[in-house]
Amino acid sequence: MTAPRLYVVLDRTASAGRDLDEILAAALAGGAEMIQLREKTEPSGTLFPLAQRLLARCRAAGVPFIVNDRVDLAVALGADGVHLGQEDLPPAAARSLMKPGMVLGLSTHSEAQAAAAQAAGADYVAVGSMFPTTTKPIRHLVGPALARRVRPLVRVPLVGIGGITPENAGEVIAAGCDGVAVISAVCAAPDPAAAARRFVTAIDAARLLKSEGRSL
Amino acid sequence: MTAPRLYVVLDRTASAGRDLDEILAAALAGGAEMIQLREKTEPSGTLFPLAQRLLARCRAAGVPFIVNDRVDLAVALGADGVHLGQEDLPPAAARSLMKPGMVLGLSTHSEAQAAAAQAAGADYVAVGSMFPTTTKPIRHLVGPALARRVRPLVRVPLVGIGGITPENAGEVIAAGCDGVAVISAVCAAPDPAAAARRFVTAIDAARLLKSEGRSL
Repeated sequence: MTAPRLYVVLDRTASAGRDLDEILAAALAGGAEMIQLREKTEPSGTLFPLAQRLLARCRAAGVPFIVNDRVDLAVALGADGVHLGQEDLPPAAARSLMKPGMVLGLSTHSEAQAAAAQAAGADYVAVGSMFPTTTKPIRHLVGPALARRVRPLVRVPLVGIGGITPENAGEVIAAGCDGVAVISAVCAAPDPAAAARRFVTAIDAARLLKSEGRSL
Repeated sequence: MTAPRLYVVLDRTASAGRDLDEILAAALAGGAEMIQLREKTEPSGTLFPLAQRLLARCRAAGVPFIVNDRVDLAVALGADGVHLGQEDLPPAAARSLMKPGMVLGLSTHSEAQAAAAQAAGADYVAVGSMFPTTTKPIRHLVGPALARRVRPLVRVPLVGIGGITPENAGEVIAAGCDGVAVISAVCAAPDPAAAARRFVTAIDAARLLKSEGRSL
């Protein structure tokens, strides 16, 4: 798969009371290249029609739509993939349920987890948290240093996550990530489209520097 | 499928701090004929090995093991079926993910829902709540009266649920249910095996009366 520059995770608890349809439209307008729906509390019956709407909007934009945790929802929807954390279903179990061609993304917090994720057939690997976040208790604060150590271990796209802002995104790219995943930085932004645009600009700049072999 | 007399729903929040392996062993010893795992908060990665153990124990006892809500977990485990509430995935979506032969059970709270459940291909229909419960806020208190109205509408096994005790189980069977589903009445009982036995005895007595055309 192509590495997304900006991967926006839609999470209602981080969306400042706005509906996810609205946030998604703004994120896509701002240049998000992959979308994930993460919803931990909503019953799947309520989630299903919401996810169908979000998927349709992503399809229209030509952007992959990934479902967090719920493999059943992802497959039933015809979503583009599934994202699993370390506490979710084992990757092999998830893969056995997924349709051919669906993307499997895995969250990792150590070199061992990242190597295991690739061995388990992950299509992309997320690594984090990159920076402290204000919105929830910090777990697994590994920093860009871990991205630097993980980069040589994985051939698939590597995405940094956790506390990333347009200001520090370049550091994450410089450390070896192909792109960044964000939640509140877009979902909770006063202007999510503008926030997404700032990320894309920062990432493009950092990718250019990296391709020229220059550091920030 | 054969209608279970006693269907025990394993729920950690109702298990008085004991582990579900222990409750399950007791429920099976006491005569439970179907088991459901209902776990709303545990991450599926933690749930997976627990569910594997419970499934193995049910297999050894020749008793079907059903997973609540999580179709992905059920299929990945090779469980015998899935139970869905009205707020869970649409039955058709769930069925599309299930292996042939897997049981689909649906919770219903009205005649319309029960008829729709059968039309959607439910292998059994649960109806409730039969009686007020002390353990959680009462929702959909429909009573045995609804079981009586639903009975002519469904050909598949009908199971009453909600607040059923060995003392009132007979009333549920008399109203038209083939069996009863219980949670706290077994999971939270001081002696879950003895509680299960009392249910089975009460249900057998009520079934006998019913087959003889006598009321309680």
